[in-house]
Amino acid sequence: MLVVMSNGATQEQVDLVCEAIRRMGYSPLPMPGAQRTTVGLVGNDRRVDDSLVVELPGVAEVIHVSHPYKQVSREWKPDATIVTIAPGVSFGGEEVPVIAGPCSVESEEQIIEAARAVKGAGAVALRGGAFKPRSSPYSFQGLGKKGLDFLAAAKRETGLAVVTEAMDDEGAHLVAEVADCIQVGARNMQNYSLLKTVGRIGKPVLLKRGMAATIEDLLLSAEYILSEGNQDVILCERGLRTFDNTSRNLFDLTAIPVAHSLSHLPIVADPSHGTGRRDKVTPMARAAVAAGADGLIVEVHPHPEKALSDGAQSLTLDQFAELMRQLRRVAEAVDRQITGVNVAAVA
Amino acid sequence: MLVVMSNGATQEQVDLVCEAIRRMGYSPLPMPGAQRTTVGLVGNDRRVDDSLVVELPGVAEVIHVSHPYKQVSREWKPDATIVTIAPGVSFGGEEVPVIAGPCSVESEEQIIEAARAVKGAGAVALRGGAFKPRSSPYSFQGLGKKGLDFLAAAKRETGLAVVTEAMDDEGAHLVAEVADCIQVGARNMQNYSLLKTVGRIGKPVLLKRGMAATIEDLLLSAEYILSEGNQDVILCERGLRTFDNTSRNLFDLTAIPVAHSLSHLPIVADPSHGTGRRDKVTPMARAAVAAGADGLIVEVHPHPEKALSDGAQSLTLDQFAELMRQLRRVAEAVDRQITGVNVAAVA
Amino acid sequence: MLVVMSNGATQEQVDLVCEAIRRMGYSPLPMPGAQRTTVGLVGNDRRVDDSLVVELPGVAEVIHVSHPYKQVSREWKPDATIVTIAPGVSFGGEEVPVIAGPCSVESEEQIIEAARAVKGAGAVALRGGAFKPRSSPYSFQGLGKKGLDFLAAAKRETGLAVVTEAMDDEGAHLVAEVADCIQVGARNMQNYSLLKTVGRIGKPVLLKRGMAATIEDLLLSAEYILSEGNQDVILCERGLRTFDNTSRNLFDLTAIPVAHSLSHLPIVADPSHGTGRRDKVTPMARAAVAAGADGLIVEVHPHPEKALSDGAQSLTLDQFAELMRQLRRVAEAVDRQITGVNVAAVA
Amino acid sequence: MLVVMSNGATQEQVDLVCEAIRRMGYSPLPMPGAQRTTVGLVGNDRRVDDSLVVELPGVAEVIHVSHPYKQVSREWKPDATIVTIAPGVSFGGEEVPVIAGPCSVESEEQIIEAARAVKGAGAVALRGGAFKPRSSPYSFQGLGKKGLDFLAAAKRETGLAVVTEAMDDEGAHLVAEVADCIQVGARNMQNYSLLKTVGRIGKPVLLKRGMAATIEDLLLSAEYILSEGNQDVILCERGLRTFDNTSRNLFDLTAIPVAHSLSHLPIVADPSHGTGRRDKVTPMARAAVAAGADGLIVEVHPHPEKALSDGAQSLTLDQFAELMRQLRRVAEAVDRQITGVNVAAVA
Repeated sequence: MLVVMSNGATQEQVDLVCEAIRRMGYSPLPMPGAQRTTVGLVGNDRRVDDSLVVELPGVAEVIHVSHPYKQVSREWKPDATIVTIAPGVSFGGEEVPVIAGPCSVESEEQIIEAARAVKGAGAVALRGGAFKPRSSPYSFQGLGKKGLDFLAAAKRETGLAVVTEAMDDEGAHLVAEVADCIQVGARNMQNYSLLKTVGRIGKPVLLKRGMAATIEDLLLSAEYILSEGNQDVILCERGLRTFDNTSRNLFDLTAIPVAHSLSHLPIVADPSHGTGRRDKVTPMARAAVAAGADGLIVEVHPHPEKALSDGAQSLTLDQFAELMRQLRRVAEAVDRQITGVNVAAVA
Repeated sequence: MLVVMSNGATQEQVDLVCEAIRRMGYSPLPMPGAQRTTVGLVGNDRRVDDSLVVELPGVAEVIHVSHPYKQVSREWKPDATIVTIAPGVSFGGEEVPVIAGPCSVESEEQIIEAARAVKGAGAVALRGGAFKPRSSPYSFQGLGKKGLDFLAAAKRETGLAVVTEAMDDEGAHLVAEVADCIQVGARNMQNYSLLKTVGRIGKPVLLKRGMAATIEDLLLSAEYILSEGNQDVILCERGLRTFDNTSRNLFDLTAIPVAHSLSHLPIVADPSHGTGRRDKVTPMARAAVAAGADGLIVEVHPHPEKALSDGAQSLTLDQFAELMRQLRRVAEAVDRQITGVNVAAVA
Repeated sequence: MLVVMSNGATQEQVDLVCEAIRRMGYSPLPMPGAQRTTVGLVGNDRRVDDSLVVELPGVAEVIHVSHPYKQVSREWKPDATIVTIAPGVSFGGEEVPVIAGPCSVESEEQIIEAARAVKGAGAVALRGGAFKPRSSPYSFQGLGKKGLDFLAAAKRETGLAVVTEAMDDEGAHLVAEVADCIQVGARNMQNYSLLKTVGRIGKPVLLKRGMAATIEDLLLSAEYILSEGNQDVILCERGLRTFDNTSRNLFDLTAIPVAHSLSHLPIVADPSHGTGRRDKVTPMARAAVAAGADGLIVEVHPHPEKALSDGAQSLTLDQFAELMRQLRRVAEAVDRQITGVNVAAVA
Repeated sequence: MLVVMSNGATQEQVDLVCEAIRRMGYSPLPMPGAQRTTVGLVGNDRRVDDSLVVELPGVAEVIHVSHPYKQVSREWKPDATIVTIAPGVSFGGEEVPVIAGPCSVESEEQIIEAARAVKGAGAVALRGGAFKPRSSPYSFQGLGKKGLDFLAAAKRETGLAVVTEAMDDEGAHLVAEVADCIQVGARNMQNYSLLKTVGRIGKPVLLKRGMAATIEDLLLSAEYILSEGNQDVILCERGLRTFDNTSRNLFDLTAIPVAHSLSHLPIVADPSHGTGRRDKVTPMARAAVAAGADGLIVEVHPHPEKALSDGAQSLTLDQFAELMRQLRRVAEAVDRQITGVNVAAVA
């Protein structure tokens, strides 16, 4: 922490700041400048509460230097974490797994048909919401527990790993019985009760970045999960809210290399929510892999025109198969490979 | 709903759209234009799922006309809703109640001292968090159930109404036993499980706008509560996240007249979180009342320099007393009055 | 400037940073911390170019402490600057002048009619664009030089001071012949050629904040004008662009007390552009005065339904007269008064 | 244009709207709905001024259907425009040219050294600012006309095409004498005087997207240039301003496929400004090509640690050579090729 004094600050005021820092248990280090004095705080091991000094007379500004997170940081653990959600489905290594499936589970037939189809095109995990967070109480809210049963059936049929969202503590325990990876959605990124619960459950978690969350916020939310003893967190970029409504969201692909710098956790990209429009999913999925994404999560629906939610951003099966063909080539160009795809077969 | 055809759309494509609209149970109304045809959908009573038409050939864009919310809208109920959380503490009428108190409940002495002091300066309700949503797992998380007991004690001592936050379903039931009004925080504005729970509990709810929530989003979240049968919702503007970090948030006071146009629900303002800086609270509290706020919620701490959270935005008791004096004059200038204050005494 | 070393930085790397700072002509001050070392730079008088150190091995982050502006800062000049654009029309003191008029000058009759009317209701300066920056090349672009002649005529008729926009160097000189105050619009806030030109011309300047400008950006743009020797700059808040399209812009009234803290320059508010909707202008104008605005600039059109631009946000004459009545009361409540209005008459 | 009546609107109010539309020279088409009536406007050929109807009694909302731009749209010209700035340097076709060079021209030696080096690594055009828009008046403002002379020398030496920025009308004419392509910077994207000037000059223009500009805004600014008779416009994505300061800007790569859908103009990406950090340039350049960018503009400095501006985002020559190697592989993976690179040589 660095306390910047205003340029008319007196020596008494500087002394008061030093005293306050001492009272907080740290050592003050005054640095006189040409225009003003700054006082450093020596010995802090994490973010310091600045309330004791911020309002003292003569203080112009308080600047925090240390990151407020710890276990998620690459400084803490330099090697990349590899999160394995099922045999052969690992995020954070050389391989890039693709999770695909419909926005919502709508029926047993629909989810099994979708699972078979995305598996055929190369996906190694199935997505599909049983519990759906919807802006309007009048929109389809998901099939709930019955949807989880259908996901379990699709898993038995195809062997695909299952990723599905939990919205509250009770739901998290239900989801954990069926899913290989529990998704925490963007709207719940700062639902700390839920974060602690999935931290304690201990299953891998796919944590989506909130619509207005900085990368630091995302890492802090991941820290909640790690601090409960669960290291298996996969970050997910899914688009931010901004002033331009041309796309549904602003897909922040720079978050991928930034997260890789700051954290050892893997990060995947969701080009379906990130763009909100079917015809933009394929180019932006390619871009995500080129930027270094450790995986993709893509909405695919056997019959998007009949989807009960988010139909406009779901790929058809043909589009998904074509996407996978393109992704293989881009992955190879950045020395990675899409999980489950025989590279030799591409050449 | 209005379907805009691209300017090279054929008659067959227009016919297909009309047919799709008929299949959805509505009547299509084609409107040929100089450049292109648009097709209106007649007879919809709420937001129509557009997935059947948005991807049809020749469709350029789909525009939604109806609002996706209903019971919260002023069209649905033209008269302002007055939410009474305790005898004499009503939001939405001519009077403007002020809720004040510390960010967190820290001890029985602290909260009782604060309650007495804010009551003395004219506040009619006490705020103070027992359950605290914090970005970092290493920050003070509140005293929990014990904090609720201390709030109950402060209420017994002073008679002030109590407003405090709930973060999950279990907490909401605990809070409901003590509080006169349950607060749902900005980070949980789209925690739909929690919204339904507080809707079913039936106590008044203070619903804070999320950091990146549009006013429509806020109203949709309120609609979740009303749709469970609870009409007593107080909206709260507390600042948005933007690119300028000079203030902690961007306090959107225009939300006040906008909410009044769109909805019959009362809306209060939180200048403490809205600005994040103690020295900006007073001018922006005045501005909120001048803009038409139906109440204020302000952070006041007997000893802000010792506060365990948000000390830098808490007013001292003297500053709060001065704020109340200023608010009375501004309220009078817009033909309203601060609850509990004898106007005659001001003149 | 403060150089934060990464937590594995070696002593050699710290030494390299110190050496680089010495080469830049400053003194380094290393501060060892529990987790990492930071190195302060002593003796800087303004923003230091960090490129020599930011990429050195072991450097985690560089933090700037000093503000990059100087002459506009309140530290530089503690007393508020009062900008007088015409006799009796001063911004920055106790009085609050109101500038009013149509968005565009459309004809001699229109602008004279408008000038008489706004004067009658209490405005002391006339606004009206002769040069109009429009997003589309197909929108009305203003009457240009002829529009300036009409403004001059309106000034002769009414004695009102004139505020009108210049969009380029040539236009700035034309505007300066007629106007009492040259407006630089939001889109040109970072048109540095124009800023230098109006700095050299020396007439008072009303500088509008850009749609995505921080307050620091605004102050830096003002610094361009002051650094050419022109102290007469009036800042203007007119709304920012954000994700919520309910209003045309997000009117950032907190900018008013923030600018007052950081700078000695006066700041006025434009509730017409700030909200974009006629029915929101009055409450937000009241809020601006309550927040401490040093003036207002309001769009008023004798016949808004016939306006060639921005009709939807222009007040009618009756609405403007009512606004002035309300403003007088709010100004009085914050111990100020609307310029030209006999306070006694209000009581 | 579509006029949405409020749900209590009377038939008289609907008739008034129809009458207003007729007075505007169009035909009204009322569409009664279950909840409310909407009135379409038939026969408009471009954005209609809505001020005559937006404030009529009973009108809830006005929705615009047509795009406000025309010549830049893909509907107007379905085939992609190819902009050739010099022999063999074309944007918008299968090839992807790379423009590289330092932020600023600092000396004849520096720019010639940089030009030779970037040419050696495969760049086909040279960037380098002679006129520099800087937030602070105290920052280095470029060498001006002398910088143009140095650019001309570098062009003679290397044969590279030259792209450099103009900030005002006078500068645009000077730049046009030397440059093969005139850059209009982000801060001047809505400097309409400058846009018209470069439109009339007729040389190719690289138009950078403003920090808070929507893609529609960018296209409207391009329309200013095209409407002066100059078709040779290259759009450029360079990052938006948002709430997350982890990166300098938010690089909106989705703008690439979106611009391709809406417009026939080519679009290039600037990963240097788009990310603001050297170590993020390479992954995001790869991502831009994977997303479909028609070119790249990259900051490269022979000695970035000595750069007078933007050193922290400039690549070293080695990093640039490595970038080009990576780009070739990604371009090939999306069936394109980096201009001037022998694809056979890559295999």
